[in-house]
Amino acid sequence: LADERAWTDGLRRFFGTEPDVAVGIGDDAAVVAARGAQQVVCCDPVVQGVHFTANEDLSLVGQKAVNRNLSDLAAMGADADWLLVSIVAPRSFDERRLRPLLLGLRRASRRGGARVVGGDVAVADGPLVVTVTAIGHCQGRALTRSGARAGDTLHVTGPLGGSRAGHHLRFRPALAEGRWLARQRSVHAAIDVSDGLLLDLETMLRASGGLGAELDAASVPIRAAARSRARGDRRRALRAALTDGEDHVLLWSQRDRALPATGPLSARARRPIGRVLAEPGLWLVDRGRRTRLAGVGFQHGFAARDDRPAR
Amino acid sequence: LADERAWTDGLRRFFGTEPDVAVGIGDDAAVVAARGAQQVVCCDPVVQGVHFTANEDLSLVGQKAVNRNLSDLAAMGADADWLLVSIVAPRSFDERRLRPLLLGLRRASRRGGARVVGGDVAVADGPLVVTVTAIGHCQGRALTRSGARAGDTLHVTGPLGGSRAGHHLRFRPALAEGRWLARQRSVHAAIDVSDGLLLDLETMLRASGGLGAELDAASVPIRAAARSRARGDRRRALRAALTDGEDHVLLWSQRDRALPATGPLSARARRPIGRVLAEPGLWLVDRGRRTRLAGVGFQHGFAARDDRPAR
Repeated sequence: LADERAWTDGLRRFFGTEPDVAVGIGDDAAVVAARGAQQVVCCDPVVQGVHFTANEDLSLVGQKAVNRNLSDLAAMGADADWLLVSIVAPRSFDERRLRPLLLGLRRASRRGGARVVGGDVAVADGPLVVTVTAIGHCQGRALTRSGARAGDTLHVTGPLGGSRAGHHLRFRPALAEGRWLARQRSVHAAIDVSDGLLLDLETMLRASGGLGAELDAASVPIRAAARSRARGDRRRALRAALTDGEDHVLLWSQRDRALPATGPLSARARRPIGRVLAEPGLWLVDRGRRTRLAGVGFQHGFAARDDRPAR
Repeated sequence: LADERAWTDGLRRFFGTEPDVAVGIGDDAAVVAARGAQQVVCCDPVVQGVHFTANEDLSLVGQKAVNRNLSDLAAMGADADWLLVSIVAPRSFDERRLRPLLLGLRRASRRGGARVVGGDVAVADGPLVVTVTAIGHCQGRALTRSGARAGDTLHVTGPLGGSRAGHHLRFRPALAEGRWLARQRSVHAAIDVSDGLLLDLETMLRASGGLGAELDAASVPIRAAARSRARGDRRRALRAALTDGEDHVLLWSQRDRALPATGPLSARARRPIGRVLAEPGLWLVDRGRRTRLAGVGFQHGFAARDDRPAR
């Protein structure tokens, strides 16, 4: 690892410059053409030992670093425009691992319709940290997590649970779905499911003024990896779907009425997984039994997360 | 350190929301009113063990994390609008240290005319990393590092050297100066001096097509801390001014003609510290002797930086 400057030069050559970008990587800051719409911005890191393991393929790590942020934009109903990349590399970092990391960052950027306009490498004693900032815009309204109403139905864009088996590195952000949902007036709130369905559902309900919800166990879509990991134990697979993290699907709340049949949603996503209640509390209806899910999520401290390898 | 969510809630309460900001901290992303001008964006981390020591007052660290980025915007002639803050905290991080960090972030934001609209806390095994993304805009042109011309005079906004004695935590970004310089047509290029005058000068000259420069030793302003550290050794003080990092003053190149006497520049900053040459190479003129500064800067790898405590 010879020189931070040589690395930053490498970033510039790698990501290049493109139309709309007056000044790209390599100056004190990037200059981009501003849009006449509302801008949507977010910034999330991926950290070795937390979001990926030491020997992970760094092209997948780069992809994840971008897609985590694009998934946040998707949940706002935004399009992605520009990305900034900040890499803090350990002193011992093998230079040959930089290229796959950049390839992954670029691949995910392009797929998401975004361009990397800024980048910086620093070196420190510590784990590899890749922080991506995403800047996008909303054509119309921004879809927040705070508009859910009692009586709404709840939906997700894809299956849940078992993400750490590989999905957490390979997921595609639901940008088309988010954009489309934001245009439907009957959609009231949406959130990126990153910390587990129950935790993010609770966040949405709390942001919407302290509502509750009831989930229908049979309707919650379970990822194949969670099923196979549960080896036929139905309740274990369900628990994974409700609490595992890094699904990066969208959870949304809509008026109890079907959405137009056009658009990017799967038939599965159109079917509710539950409904919003006026009183706080989460309930699960499973084979006719209704049980309260008590205080789930809020106890998830870091200690509890220590035994989840890919979190 | 109880819960990342509680911390992020803490960020939201701390930074609040403000006009122009449709959605602030606490949703998947922030939504801000877009401007009709060119946008200028940058993202730089501060890392414990590299940019500050383990026992540093975290209010100063927060201030530095913001001001490093504002100094980059200043060098483009931009105004700061919005900031995003990403904190990666070690597991052992003492919760009571979060508040001073946030206070420092907010204080520097306000002084710089910017507002924190997004924030996130993650926990990992490693040093404290505070990454700030700054989003600003240019009223007119963006001032890049690539426009210097042979025959230009070189200038800096303030004294250089000895930053690690305290300046690196306390500097104020030269936003007013950068904005004003960008409006002067005779100013051709500018750069934030963060890696040492010679290194950043060389970067500017290289970005301007491979030019050279001659510095006048007697005209280079030396920070009092560098003088006092050199204990009367004039050459040692000068070396500090030329090579120490984290000055965060602006270096600029202008047509050889005085700038208008109005504006925020000090009389000192109006006097040239050297001039741009058509041929590559850096020269120092000191008491009538002209010596070549050979390959300075480009050898500064990380190994060389290890013995600089505050870098």
